[in-house]
Amino acid sequence: VSGAGRPSEFELIARVFAPLAGEGSYGLLDDAAAWSPPPGHDVVLTKDALAAGIHFFPDDPWDAVARKALRVNLSDLAAKGARPEGYLLGLGLPDAWTTEDLDAFGAGLAADQAAFAVALIGGDTIRTPERLTISVTAIGTVPTGRMVRRGGATPGDAIVVTGTIGDAALGLRLRLDADLDRWLALNAWERAHLLDRYLLPQPRVAAAAAVLAHANGAMDISDGLAGDLAKMASASGVAIGIDAASVPLSDAARVACAADAALFSVALTGGDDYEIAASVPPARLDGFLAALAAAGVPATVIGAVSAGEGLTAVGSDGRPLDLGTGSFAHF
Amino acid sequence: VSGAGRPSEFELIARVFAPLAGEGSYGLLDDAAAWSPPPGHDVVLTKDALAAGIHFFPDDPWDAVARKALRVNLSDLAAKGARPEGYLLGLGLPDAWTTEDLDAFGAGLAADQAAFAVALIGGDTIRTPERLTISVTAIGTVPTGRMVRRGGATPGDAIVVTGTIGDAALGLRLRLDADLDRWLALNAWERAHLLDRYLLPQPRVAAAAAVLAHANGAMDISDGLAGDLAKMASASGVAIGIDAASVPLSDAARVACAADAALFSVALTGGDDYEIAASVPPARLDGFLAALAAAGVPATVIGAVSAGEGLTAVGSDGRPLDLGTGSFAHF
Repeated sequence: VSGAGRPSEFELIARVFAPLAGEGSYGLLDDAAAWSPPPGHDVVLTKDALAAGIHFFPDDPWDAVARKALRVNLSDLAAKGARPEGYLLGLGLPDAWTTEDLDAFGAGLAADQAAFAVALIGGDTIRTPERLTISVTAIGTVPTGRMVRRGGATPGDAIVVTGTIGDAALGLRLRLDADLDRWLALNAWERAHLLDRYLLPQPRVAAAAAVLAHANGAMDISDGLAGDLAKMASASGVAIGIDAASVPLSDAARVACAADAALFSVALTGGDDYEIAASVPPARLDGFLAALAAAGVPATVIGAVSAGEGLTAVGSDGRPLDLGTGSFAHF
Repeated sequence: VSGAGRPSEFELIARVFAPLAGEGSYGLLDDAAAWSPPPGHDVVLTKDALAAGIHFFPDDPWDAVARKALRVNLSDLAAKGARPEGYLLGLGLPDAWTTEDLDAFGAGLAADQAAFAVALIGGDTIRTPERLTISVTAIGTVPTGRMVRRGGATPGDAIVVTGTIGDAALGLRLRLDADLDRWLALNAWERAHLLDRYLLPQPRVAAAAAVLAHANGAMDISDGLAGDLAKMASASGVAIGIDAASVPLSDAARVACAADAALFSVALTGGDDYEIAASVPPARLDGFLAALAAAGVPATVIGAVSAGEGLTAVGSDGRPLDLGTGSFAHF
């Protein structure tokens, strides 16, 4: 199926992937990689996959797609308090790939490897004729027994989220609906901000050490704030209550929600935020916020944990807000 | 996209995957798994992906597909001398899946988890509308620094292969060409043997300890014996010479090659064997063969390593055999 002028599998590895290969990968020319966590550490493993037309647009640039595939996994590691170490790449190539696509893909990964101090240690490339599919397995480390669990939220904890919520979900709406774009009358900067948050997540790798040191529980916000906090409540056997008015929005998201109040619900349930939600005991809250600030990570207290079950949200009018199931369905 | 009566993502995890989940997976309800190798051990990581219509037939039973996806990865671990520990599953579901498909998929994995002493520790499920795609990351352990490399073949070594070669490639030909099936006049047992070797690889997990103890170098034979030995020669910076007449064939493959001599070349180059090729120094050859025999793994010496480069094969007439590039192209 190789097109004219396209590199063979061997050439592709040598050209695109071998330059990304880290210690233990044996230049990607063995059946497997060998790697060890530092003494006194656990291995943290996560695997998130993306498919064209499902998790990104088929015409998104390949460098951005590569970075998104890596970053959504780094986001999971950060939410567990784990330090990223490396990753394996499962690449499913559509029949229409070009050498330029793969060069861009490799360049995107190279940029993020430098930004986040990780290296490629293995993987596999196959044909998936209709659509580009990418399955990354990311590997991190935490001190033994210290992975921060989704199920660790404890009554009395504060619920803290990093960054701003809803930008990516609004960016996706803009991509899907040109009318919406015109109607919201966003300025160029606001529009670019929302679109960029969808195209290229910013995983909170810088927050990992603070999460490890201070949080009772944490998760990354990928399927929508509301749905993900409901999952945290369920996993922890607690109730979580949030004050919707305190959920941090970007200036661009504020403009959009002011133009169409229904978009606020999109922001809270739409997903692709790749921020971290952490449940932090009162005695460690100041320390957590200070550590995040020192790491350059904005953070906001949006609610609290209590005995009970489920997620409840109170609107700016003081009345309960119905967020439905509020979660991205994966299939 | 969920069809009537099909389980939600949450229900699917609870029904199909949570029963497969091992220690450190947190019931598959967290962002990541935490796991540690035993003290004094490296983590061995491998990732092989399969797509319907590329690596298996779209109408293959889902339990067999699940097992194949796991087994091709266990084969890589075995060839590295690694003990299998667990795996992460990246599942891309076509739009036409049914609850029965997923139940069969889970049952296949459960059977192989019991057979090979591994557990599911994480993963992700996404939509891949046109075709089932499966990306497994398998995790094993070896004593620190002891992973058996593809590049370890040393002049003077014997080349040993486990089991029989070519069955799966011939089974694939039978699936693709009903005329061939009639013409070869295989009996029912022979036909079933070849078809089954394609449908369901038998990874040589039982050989891993012997490989670890005795081999200078090893790899699994997945892309064709000829191409894979050429890769071993290249990675090791040596020449490998094999005696084609000594390559072990099953009775069924012998019948097929007797009916059509051209099928011998298919057997040597076709791939999907999931046997192990090992390069073993003379002083350890008897020990290796004895350890394999004790583990119930058939093995055959088919060649030797010398200074130089490339793979050469001698036919039963004593003349060089041209095997071309002899390797499965992945895309």
